[in-house]
This record gives sequence, C-alpha cells and structure tokens, in this order.
Amino acid sequence: MSFSSIPELIKKKRDGGIFTPSEVEHLVIGIARGYVEPYQASALCMAVFFRGLDDDELVAWTMAMRDSGRTLDWSGSRGIRVDKHSTGGVGDKISIPLAPIVASCGVAVPMLSGRGLGHTGGTLDKLEAIPGFRTQLTIEELIRNVNEIGVAMGGQTADLAPADKMLYSLRDVTATVESIPLIVSSILAKKLAEKLDGLVMDVKFGSGAFMQSTADARSLAKRIVATAKLAGCPTVALLTNMDAPLGAACGNANEIAESVEILQGGGPSDVRDLTIELAAEMLMLAKAAVDLPAGRARARSAIADGAALRKFGELIQKQGGDPGVIDDPSRLPQAPRTAVWKTPEAGYLQKMDAGKVGLAVVALGGGRAKVKDTIDPAVGVRLLQKLGARVDRGQPVFEIAYREENRREIADRYLNESVVVGSAPTPPAPLILERIH
Amino acid sequence: MSFSSIPELIKKKRDGGIFTPSEVEHLVIGIARGYVEPYQASALCMAVFFRGLDDDELVAWTMAMRDSGRTLDWSGSRGIRVDKHSTGGVGDKISIPLAPIVASCGVAVPMLSGRGLGHTGGTLDKLEAIPGFRTQLTIEELIRNVNEIGVAMGGQTADLAPADKMLYSLRDVTATVESIPLIVSSILAKKLAEKLDGLVMDVKFGSGAFMQSTADARSLAKRIVATAKLAGCPTVALLTNMDAPLGAACGNANEIAESVEILQGGGPSDVRDLTIELAAEMLMLAKAAVDLPAGRARARSAIADGAALRKFGELIQKQGGDPGVIDDPSRLPQAPRTAVWKTPEAGYLQKMDAGKVGLAVVALGGGRAKVKDTIDPAVGVRLLQKLGARVDRGQPVFEIAYREENRREIADRYLNESVVVGSAPTPPAPLILERIH
Repeated sequence: MSFSSIPELIKKKRDGGIFTPSEVEHLVIGIARGYVEPYQASALCMAVFFRGLDDDELVAWTMAMRDSGRTLDWSGSRGIRVDKHSTGGVGDKISIPLAPIVASCGVAVPMLSGRGLGHTGGTLDKLEAIPGFRTQLTIEELIRNVNEIGVAMGGQTADLAPADKMLYSLRDVTATVESIPLIVSSILAKKLAEKLDGLVMDVKFGSGAFMQSTADARSLAKRIVATAKLAGCPTVALLTNMDAPLGAACGNANEIAESVEILQGGGPSDVRDLTIELAAEMLMLAKAAVDLPAGRARARSAIADGAALRKFGELIQKQGGDPGVIDDPSRLPQAPRTAVWKTPEAGYLQKMDAGKVGLAVVALGGGRAKVKDTIDPAVGVRLLQKLGARVDRGQPVFEIAYREENRREIADRYLNESVVVGSAPTPPAPLILERIH
Repeated sequence: MSFSSIPELIKKKRDGGIFTPSEVEHLVIGIARGYVEPYQASALCMAVFFRGLDDDELVAWTMAMRDSGRTLDWSGSRGIRVDKHSTGGVGDKISIPLAPIVASCGVAVPMLSGRGLGHTGGTLDKLEAIPGFRTQLTIEELIRNVNEIGVAMGGQTADLAPADKMLYSLRDVTATVESIPLIVSSILAKKLAEKLDGLVMDVKFGSGAFMQSTADARSLAKRIVATAKLAGCPTVALLTNMDAPLGAACGNANEIAESVEILQGGGPSDVRDLTIELAAEMLMLAKAAVDLPAGRARARSAIADGAALRKFGELIQKQGGDPGVIDDPSRLPQAPRTAVWKTPEAGYLQKMDAGKVGLAVVALGGGRAKVKDTIDPAVGVRLLQKLGARVDRGQPVFEIAYREENRREIADRYLNESVVVGSAPTPPAPLILERIH
C-alpha cells in the first residue's frame, strides 16, 4: 500500500478531510516508530483539535495506538476479565476497594492505573503508601498474578501502547490535550491493550474533574463507549459528580485507610455507593450478575462476608506490601502534625470545591504539580463535614495532616477558597447523574 | 517581564486569543533561540493557520522575525534603497533586468532573492547560469557592492532572519505553509532586514502562482502592504497574472538571455511591460520619479541609452560572472538537444497552463522537486507562440532544450496537459490586474 507523504496527510486533516483506516494506522504507527517527527505529530494533533476525528477514524486511531506495543495475552487463562477506569478526581480511591470486591466475586481484574498530576490523585501513588507495595509489575507478573489471585494493580509499562506515551508527553507541551478524540484514544488504547471482556468508565464532571461541565463529560463518555464497543470491548460509562471530594480522605495513606473501611462495610456513604454501583456494572458486564440489583447484592455480600477484604490482603501480599495495614492502619505512613481548618461563618456548607481541596493536598506534598515531583504519602486533608452540612462558626471542617508549616499555610489558603458557607441549605446533587451504554 | 509558559501561549492562540506584542516577540525569538521546541513551533503555526494573526500581532511577529538576526547596516551609505519581491511564477525573470534598470537610474537595489522550488523558478538559480556568477555574498560584500555600483543580487544568509529559516523549513513539513499571516511575515522579515526605503511587491495569481485565485492573491497583497507600512517600509503591490508563463523563456540560461534582450530594448512585450511598470513603482517610491508616467519614461530611457545593460555587465563582473554573455549568449550553458512540441489540433491557444509548463522545466532538470535537487541551467522550454494565438494543426508551440530523452518524455506529457486549443479566440486577460498601496 502506498501513502501520501506525512505533510500531505496533515494537510488532509487540516482541511477537514477524513482519513482512511490505513492512513490513520500509518500515522499512529509512524509516531511510535519515529518516521512521523514530533513536530509533525504535534501539528497533526492541533489539526485534530480543530477538525476532530469521526467514529471510524477514532476507532482506527485507538486500535493503532493499542497495537503500537504489546497487549496482554490471556491465552491459556480461564474466566472473564473486566476493568474500571476513572477520568480522575479528588478523593477518588474507588479502584482500591473495587478491584478486590469484583475479584472476590470470581471475575478477574487486570487493572493498569496512573499517577496523580495537578489536583487529581492517582491510584498508583495511593497504593504505594502501603509499605513495600510494588506497582511496577512487568506484563508477565501482571498476567501471572491475575491468573493466580484474580487481581493485579500495576502501572503502564513502556512496552504497552508506546504511541500513547509519546503522544501524551507531546500533547502536554503543545496545548493539544483538550481534544475529545485524542483523550478517548489515549484512555482506551491502554485499556484495550489489557484485552478485557468489559470496561466500566467513571467519567467525572465538576470543579475537581478534567471535564468541568456535564455536557463535556457526557460527550466524552458517549465517545468512549461508542469507540470501545466498535473496537470490540463492551463498555458502560457512569457520569459522576466531582464538585466536592469523594469521601472524607484526600491524600494517599489516608485514602488507603478509607478504602479498608469500605471493605470492612463502613466508610463514607458516597464512596460505598459508587463502589457498589461500579462493581455491579463490572459484574454484569462479566455476566456474573443478571442485572444491576443482582450485581449490587453480590458486591454487598462480598463485603459482608469478608471475602473482598481478604482479597485485598492477598493483593497486597502478592505485590510485596504489608497486609498488616488492614488490621492496623497506624502501620501506614503518619504525618508528624495535624491541624484543623475551622469555618469562620455559621450556615450551610454550600460548596467544598474539589479542585481547591486537591490543590491543598498538592501543596502539602501529597500530589504533583509537575510529573517529576515526589509524593509524601503521609500528608493529606480529611473532610470532617460533608457538603450541605449545617455548621457553627468556628466548627472544624477539615483536618490537615502535614509535615511542614509553610506548606500547611499554602494548603490553608486553598481550603479558604474551597468553602462557601451560605444561609440557605442547597439540595444535594445526585452522585451518579447518568448511565451511558 | 514574565510570560505565560509556552504551552499556555499556544493554548491562547488555539482558543482564539490575541497575543500582546511582547508575547509574540517571546515566541518568535524563542523559536530562533530554541527555547520554543520545534514541536511547539509547529503546533503554534497550526493554531495560527486556524485562528490567524490580527494586524498588531502580524507586525510584531514580522519585526521579531526580522530582529531574530542581523539587518543590513547602511550607516555611512548615501542615497535611497528599494527592492522588488515576487511571490514566484514561471518564466518570471523580471528581477534580472529590473535591478540594473533601477540602479542605472541612481537608486540602489540591495536584492536578496530565493531559489526555485516546485514549478516556480528562482532568481538565484537563473543568475548562476551565468558562468562564474557568485550569489552567495556575505552581508558585508552585499553592502559594499551596493555602495560601489548601486546593485547586488544575493541569497539569504544564515544570519539574516534565522527565525524565518527555521520556521519555513518546519512549516514545509507540517502542512502550515498556507497561512496568509505566516506567508506575509516570512516574505517581509527578509525584506525588512534589508532596511529599505521602499518595497514593490509583485503578487501573482493564476495556475502558475502560489495563490491561484485573485481573491487569495489580493488578501495576501493587502496584508503585505499594510504590515510593511506599519513596520515603517513604504510598500506598493501589483496583482499580476500568472495563468500563462511570463515571456517566452522558461528555464535558467534561456531566461538570462531573455533578460539581456529586455535590457537591449527587445524581448517579449509582457516581460518588458511588467519590468517597466515595476521599475516605475520603485523609482517613484525612491522619489526619483514624480509619478508613474515619469518613472516609466525614466526606465525606458535607461534601456534606450544602454545604461541599464552596462549596469548589468557591471553587476555580473562584480559578482565574478562572465559579462561576455551579454554580447554572446552562446557563452551561456547550452543543452545538447532540442525538440519541438507541436499542437495536434488547429484553433486558438486558449490555455498555456503556467504550472504545467513549470513542471515540464522541473522534469527536464531545470528546477527542483525537492530542496536538495541540483539544477541543470542549460535545459528549458521556450514558448514559440503566446497565449491566444491562432495555430494550425502540427504547428510548433514549444521548443524544448533537453539533455536526456526520458526526461524530455515526461516534460512532453506536462506540455500536453498545459495546452488547450479551442475554436473560439479568448479575450486576453490584463497582465496587471490591480495596484494596492
């Protein structure tokens, strides 16, 4: 097959043309192999930002990204494999209780997660708060662990979707991140490389989410679901609220502790509800539940009978971590100091801006402003009140676990900005806005 | 002064923002110095392709490109300096008779020209058909020659507008050439670096021009004139027809011979008319003529009294060439073979597509398909008939000077495609469509 030159292909997209599947493949593979230069890839991404990709182009783009590297080979493995992916938020530790719950129901979960950046946290960073926990699994280890205990939680390896790694680092410095098709292909390339039987997407909207408006989040969710299905992976998305942090714990060690609470049948109700809902979706995709009510019941009983918590212990042990943290959360890293943030006004907590709370955690050292920043697992913010609560003047709203006073002061300023106290109660927004399938 | 990060500036343009002059300068200087990476520059150019630059941004961009390198220093030099620039065409040798005509009228012409690419020829390539002629002048040589004999014709040096060199090579491979503001700034950065007292632009439209439609050419001309004026350089543009080749000679050596004919008072009338008109504009800008009729008269008399031809001889001598070519064109490189292309039909020559004739010259080896191709100065095409002429079946229309039979065959095919013979005469199109000032 012969192709137009790379500049001609960029021009085609620039002028609103539609690529053939083989043109898309030629470009994406070229980005991975280097015959498309970085300055051509960035110009192409900017043209895609303006012109978009249609459904066929997006499927071809996503599959070419997936096929730019290795994929997980499940030949010889039994059973069904599903995964969940969240577009990221503040206090979003759901993956951590979710994967053991689903695995304890007999459905395998080969979960590849990411790290935190900006105000959003990352599952890998949270898991690494567990002393000894190794997230840098090879593909072979990941497959072996899933085959042995039904669950593994690792990071993207260099040989998995390398075109995505390359494109993402380029998009980050060329103002081409905010393109729905490029976001869709980046998310799905890695998930499709896991060779799943089903995928559940948690697409967040609100102040702490990448997509702030529900309309943008809905567009993203719809394209993810449509593209994944066309690529052969049954997928369901939930549109969920990220205006306020999820749960009470925002940080790393404290989110592990909250995850354990969920697996013990406790924890904040929003985290519990969303975990159960996502588990039900995964179980239904895996045909381990006939409908959502059956899926929810199954997930609840895996918590109630202790199977999910035991599975989490197995997972920690398997990946080199200290399973003692389950019974004794004080074995998790502890910050040397705590302080409380008190509301200067009485009234109703009308707003607890998730984005600002996330930035407070970053300021404390619990997140990353830049990719190369290191994480302090011990620090964090705990919500002592939930959105909508009635508070008195001087009542503690946040507990801050910190190491350095000057960092606490910056975090304090973000927390000041995060809260709005008003005289009228505000009706609670639904946590799950829509189901897209 | 502090700036937003480079990705934030790219995002600003992407989202339709308007740069401040210092933001533009920061970006353009960054491209030259390397703190704006090539992949960022190409994404920026693509954003500019979609969003444009307003007048203030374009002036700032152009002046920053000019100031990214050296400019010609005329301190201590006397007189007035003007130049002409053409957007490029087929058979467009006008610069070669024009510069000596104007210089012989006492107005200095420090002319920096380009090389041919694709179907368009380049002044430097044509001049190099003269045995010994050196076009690679240093800035010091160029200034000295202009001060001594009033004219020099050289190529862009590496230290002149380096941001343009860098951007142009990048735009060429990232499908970001066809952006009016980027074209305007690229043309003007080099011309403004000559520190002229006036500039005449020959903006071509038609099948052999970069801008095929008159509307696009007019937009380009208007923005060039407005931008150059805002940057302090009085500028006039002529919109001229490039549907058919200019003159009879298309090649390199043969265009030098035709240029000599013009300076001897002969040559094809279209080349003569356009040369006289552009000379009149330059003389008027230099205040060496009170109006265009006076300028035309002055240019005609410089031809008639032999001053312009003598100036051309001086120029050739000064740049190491053999001035004997003026009296004896056989001293120019000669192709070993000639052939004629005959029309298979009788009728009127309704079309002689300049683009196709240009590609025929490239096929013969007289132009470049790629930047690194070498030029064969001896080969070329000569029009034996002009557009609109009545021809009989089998009448010769083109004479082909060639070296290799297989190349002539390809050229033949382009010539077949270039000509349309019809039964009705077509009214001649005006050579000069508009004057924009």
